[in-house]
Amino acid sequence: MSDTPVAVVPSTEEALARLDMPLVDAMMTQRAIRRVHPDPVDDAIVLKLLELAQRAPTGQNGQQWEFVVVQDRAAKARLGRSYRRIWNLYWRTVYRHVAAKDPAKARMAKAVQWQVDHFEEIPVLVVACIRLGVREGRVPLVRMPHIAESGYWGSIYPAVQNLLLGARAMGLGASLVTMPLWNLTAARRMLELPVDVTPVCVVPLGWPKGRYGPSARIPVGDVTHRDAYGNRYWLDPGG
Amino acid sequence: MSDTPVAVVPSTEEALARLDMPLVDAMMTQRAIRRVHPDPVDDAIVLKLLELAQRAPTGQNGQQWEFVVVQDRAAKARLGRSYRRIWNLYWRTVYRHVAAKDPAKARMAKAVQWQVDHFEEIPVLVVACIRLGVREGRVPLVRMPHIAESGYWGSIYPAVQNLLLGARAMGLGASLVTMPLWNLTAARRMLELPVDVTPVCVVPLGWPKGRYGPSARIPVGDVTHRDAYGNRYWLDPGG
Repeated sequence: MSDTPVAVVPSTEEALARLDMPLVDAMMTQRAIRRVHPDPVDDAIVLKLLELAQRAPTGQNGQQWEFVVVQDRAAKARLGRSYRRIWNLYWRTVYRHVAAKDPAKARMAKAVQWQVDHFEEIPVLVVACIRLGVREGRVPLVRMPHIAESGYWGSIYPAVQNLLLGARAMGLGASLVTMPLWNLTAARRMLELPVDVTPVCVVPLGWPKGRYGPSARIPVGDVTHRDAYGNRYWLDPGG
Repeated sequence: MSDTPVAVVPSTEEALARLDMPLVDAMMTQRAIRRVHPDPVDDAIVLKLLELAQRAPTGQNGQQWEFVVVQDRAAKARLGRSYRRIWNLYWRTVYRHVAAKDPAKARMAKAVQWQVDHFEEIPVLVVACIRLGVREGRVPLVRMPHIAESGYWGSIYPAVQNLLLGARAMGLGASLVTMPLWNLTAARRMLELPVDVTPVCVVPLGWPKGRYGPSARIPVGDVTHRDAYGNRYWLDPGG
């Protein structure tokens, strides 16, 4: 990933026009871009991404997303401190051992370290939240039945994926992080969230220093089963 | 939604070429299509959708999806019985009261009822699963810390959204349902899933009787907050 010294910032009009990218190209070249320039991202671009996010399905069409767009430097710094604390702990206790054995994980850790170190310089942090309280059957700290839990998360992550794909099409760097939210009470306080609004993840956005490009994945036949698990009917015989 | 008597089935080549649809068009016209024809869907189409699903991000690039593609009629019928049982209960106790007050919910209920009644005739049911066991820190029945829980579901639902968007681009009817999985133990048995593989949702696929088209959403300014919750900075002043 080259460290381009100057951000290549398209006009807002041009960025929005890029949403015409063929779906398959956007998907095949989506990847986390963590190193971004501090240059601002136009509000019109952020709002368009959120409009696309809103097109994703929600359980029973509940449309219970809420998005907090954090641009204030002090607010970003507060989230950044929370991120730094948990990442440093995780790195020392677990991840440096993982990274020592796996060059791909080591590269990822380096990019995360960059993100942690520069969190308040990233122009926009979108905090995706879901609004669902006791009235809708969600009781804090009590484990819901499996399909209720699935429907809950399944009503926000499809929206987050739309946001990420839209960012990719526009050439805007984006990634999906949860660590800044590890202390849920502190995160709620920082973002002034009421008790029935839960922050789910953070998507940092900025014009990229890195590049989008094809991602590597394990073959589809390895993870696809016919009628019952274990029947890997589409396994590549040459694989 | 017109009940077209004959399925309009494109050639596999044509369906795959449709993945070039502009990203923004696919997103803006994605919607649940539950009424589908029984005509088969080519394996090459299903596998391409799963390849696209695999391009979505996963926590620490863990790539722990597993997909069970259910085409066998008896296997579909078993899932259908499970779906029918919970839907009938839900309809009688809750949803008919909701539907009585809201025409949009009543229309949705009618489409779900169709799906429930015809579940074994739907050509393909993709069961999206996530493989994550005790070794990776997931202990059955124990509630994980918030960000671990978020990372768990956030490693499968972005893939499901890619699958749904891909289906939309190809003109293939799709929807996201969780109800057939309400009895997790029974679902595991039906699909022969090991204990560390958890079924998350079912995506029924078939050539549509209905049509894709623009979806209605609440205005983005209503659900977007600047820097802290409650600061609806982008609220449409005319709204």
